[in-house]
Amino acid sequence: MTDDCRDLEALWRDGIPLANAMQLTIERGSADELVVAADLEPNINVHGTAFAGSLYAIAALAGWGLVWLGLRGAGVAGDIVLARGEIDYRRPVRSRIVCRAAWAPSEPQAFLRELAGSGRADVAVACTIGRADRAEARYTGRYVVHGETE
Amino acid sequence: MTDDCRDLEALWRDGIPLANAMQLTIERGSADELVVAADLEPNINVHGTAFAGSLYAIAALAGWGLVWLGLRGAGVAGDIVLARGEIDYRRPVRSRIVCRAAWAPSEPQAFLRELAGSGRADVAVACTIGRADRAEARYTGRYVVHGETE
Repeated sequence: MTDDCRDLEALWRDGIPLANAMQLTIERGSADELVVAADLEPNINVHGTAFAGSLYAIAALAGWGLVWLGLRGAGVAGDIVLARGEIDYRRPVRSRIVCRAAWAPSEPQAFLRELAGSGRADVAVACTIGRADRAEARYTGRYVVHGETE
Repeated sequence: MTDDCRDLEALWRDGIPLANAMQLTIERGSADELVVAADLEPNINVHGTAFAGSLYAIAALAGWGLVWLGLRGAGVAGDIVLARGEIDYRRPVRSRIVCRAAWAPSEPQAFLRELAGSGRADVAVACTIGRADRAEARYTGRYVVHGETE
């Protein structure tokens, strides 16, 4: 795991009690993708499958984390806030939750240019829970980034 | 609090660890509305405001609970599953999280008729976090109910 991913995991662990309650961990991350995972047990629902709220919260954090890694990779400081999220649940999740965040639809360079130009950027991130060809859920989040002036 | 609300709270407490982690409680509930609440502290994020994932998970449960109360009130058994959710975050939540679920757009009688007719029903529930005239977030969930045959 990269230093950036370790820092991101520590940020969640220290700042978001629910990330701990869900036992969320980072599997791998780069400027292009972030894969997070959590065991089913702390995230179970009354049906014995994954709680819909956990799946959303995990995807929301994966998306946030991908934007955070994008800023970190570019050496840019900024505050990231989720403005809107939506999720489709396709299949019940019966084992370990694995969620992959990737850029969509425009590449990260576009939001970094927007941020550099106006001090603010809107960025969409898509997340898939489960295998890409057999998704358990699909999430899209719109994040707003405000640049920090030194 | 009604017996039905007490049963619903017990169902969440016993079946959904994350509901406990969020310290979710029911403020009041009926066949027409369900109001749930949680303290900020267990649901905080890195900005010191409410975590977007907690807000969604609380709204998802409030909506699910309203459908559950509707079934219970009608004396009908059924499994309720969230099929799709979306949420708009309007303002940061800086104190206790209060979420109200209400039927939208059709009245609960319609979904009970649909369920009685085909054994399956689709139902939309809207939730507002914060005051109705100054919402902190607005959520809509589409729930699918499968009737249980005795």
